Amino acid sequence: MVNIHEYDTVALDHSDDSLTIIDQTLLPNELKILRLKTLEDIWEAIKTLRVRGAPAIGAAAACGIYLRAKEISTEHYDTFHSQFTEAKEYLASARPTAVNLTWALDRMEQRLLLCGKIDRKSILESLKSEAEAIISEDIETCKKIGEYALTLTQKGWGLLTHCNAGKLATIRYGTATAPIYLGQERGYNFKVYADETRPLLQGARLTAYELMSAGVDVTLICDNMAATVMKNGWIQAVFTGCDRVSMNGDAANKIGTLGVAILAKRYNIPFYICAPTSSIDRKAKTGADIVIEQRSPDEVTSMWYVEPMSAKGVKVYNPAFDVTDHDLITAIITEKGIAYPAFNKSLADIMK
Amino acid sequence: MVNIHEYDTVALDHSDDSLTIIDQTLLPNELKILRLKTLEDIWEAIKTLRVRGAPAIGAAAACGIYLRAKEISTEHYDTFHSQFTEAKEYLASARPTAVNLTWALDRMEQRLLLCGKIDRKSILESLKSEAEAIISEDIETCKKIGEYALTLTQKGWGLLTHCNAGKLATIRYGTATAPIYLGQERGYNFKVYADETRPLLQGARLTAYELMSAGVDVTLICDNMAATVMKNGWIQAVFTGCDRVSMNGDAANKIGTLGVAILAKRYNIPFYICAPTSSIDRKAKTGADIVIEQRSPDEVTSMWYVEPMSAKGVKVYNPAFDVTDHDLITAIITEKGIAYPAFNKSLADIMK
Repeated sequence: MVNIHEYDTVALDHSDDSLTIIDQTLLPNELKILRLKTLEDIWEAIKTLRVRGAPAIGAAAACGIYLRAKEISTEHYDTFHSQFTEAKEYLASARPTAVNLTWALDRMEQRLLLCGKIDRKSILESLKSEAEAIISEDIETCKKIGEYALTLTQKGWGLLTHCNAGKLATIRYGTATAPIYLGQERGYNFKVYADETRPLLQGARLTAYELMSAGVDVTLICDNMAATVMKNGWIQAVFTGCDRVSMNGDAANKIGTLGVAILAKRYNIPFYICAPTSSIDRKAKTGADIVIEQRSPDEVTSMWYVEPMSAKGVKVYNPAFDVTDHDLITAIITEKGIAYPAFNKSLADIMK
Repeated sequence: MVNIHEYDTVALDHSDDSLTIIDQTLLPNELKILRLKTLEDIWEAIKTLRVRGAPAIGAAAACGIYLRAKEISTEHYDTFHSQFTEAKEYLASARPTAVNLTWALDRMEQRLLLCGKIDRKSILESLKSEAEAIISEDIETCKKIGEYALTLTQKGWGLLTHCNAGKLATIRYGTATAPIYLGQERGYNFKVYADETRPLLQGARLTAYELMSAGVDVTLICDNMAATVMKNGWIQAVFTGCDRVSMNGDAANKIGTLGVAILAKRYNIPFYICAPTSSIDRKAKTGADIVIEQRSPDEVTSMWYVEPMSAKGVKVYNPAFDVTDHDLITAIITEKGIAYPAFNKSLADIMK
């Protein structure tokens, strides 16, 4: 049987100038590797969440703009740049609010601008190496987070995670899952509990699936079972990812993370946020500076078999994220080291 | 449009010797009143959860055995008793672990035994009044719980509830919903947040529906959003029902209740358990004496549209209930008064 871990979530295949991605819309029922060659196909894959997770989207876009650049036949720099910009804007429109998408595309454009008016072949070499750097840096960043996080664990521990900050959101190791995968390679025998993560079930669909595929001992629970699992004494640490960290350590992540952190505190279980330094937002002093996206009621009421599971027209509150207060966070683990409270000082030190 | 609150969840209709119930398997998409006349139909309704919730099941069984008794044509007491017992055992087999089912049937049999060898007509009169007493006592008990609970609230408060301890689990007011309905009648203008309550979604399917039908301002949330709703300052009290209370105040209720109580403590929100004294278990000293039912993994993995939402064969932990530790409970509200800590003393006083 084909295993998801034989593939990176996003990869460049130079043999036929294609971008290969794992089609996440089919998981966990089917593992299909898509081979994308046109800008339109790559746009569609980002738009329809075939590729998702901030780092994975950024990498896919970087590869996409590089593949498009190869098709621009002109030797004239300004024409080249104008066609490049056009493709960039088109790709960016696939998910306008995804910060990593524009970040990766901007980085590719910066590289092009740095090249200046050298020959087309050299420009393409530069763009290729930039796209590959974005991929390899993500792998390296996640691995470093995993190494730091692993030092905070012991063999045989029970770990709990929420949502998917896994391989499928990045290229290879994930952030919150990085210590789990490294531990798996080194015989730590973790027992992992994955919150299903309503409403969109990234924990059930993605995290439980990718950990299971790697042979990790993973158990799926509904979000509201986390307290019982902790009370049973089955959890020794919680690792979650993070969308944005403010400078005082408040951390915005998938809805439900705050609740998990409060439960962990009740049971004296360390609660760790895994986040690349790129997620630390210098402009956000506290969590109050982070705007939370509100999503469609349908996600809560209508993902069910045959018929909706709640009364027609019921009021729904459906925030996509919550902010975990810094007093609930034991440490924030980045690729540059582990930040402990007081985060105001430790995060500033890491960002130096 | 027909409103669910025009009907009791379970009722005897003497005009045609039938038991009328609200078919809960069709909610919230269709409101259908079933008129059941045969013992087989009543058995089926209990078995397939058309009627559910401990008090409602008990009342339905009591009515069922009374209707069956009316069909027993013999004037010979022993024959009558033997056919009565046969029907009782048959009904009890519909949900063997439902305590209220056997409790109600035993109570009906006790009434029969008390009658002794008087005439058939008088026996039927006694059984009828016993079935009606079971119904009216439940209504009265819930109403008293509601009156006590209401004294702990203020107009305009935001309330949060978990699972369905509502009208649909009882006859008319519910337990945790009783203060909400009484408040609604008296212009309290509560804003209620209903946890959807995974895996079986009783909050989404039943609680949000029945509150909405009564004109209550209710908002449906996923279980993992409760922390955010509390942090937003929207909740001034939590009311939940309870399956069993041990003598030290530990309370077993639907999975997720423990987590809600821990969150409430974090935000200094009072957490109230609403329970008739019949739920207080003298034999259980602490929550550790309460055995928790484990349910099928399918409930977590396979309630979804079109395809399962988690990998085939994934390990699942699916406890039906959890135990909320007494230190997290502000008060336990019964029909005989409000018990405050130390519960060892206050519950014993109430049970005197």
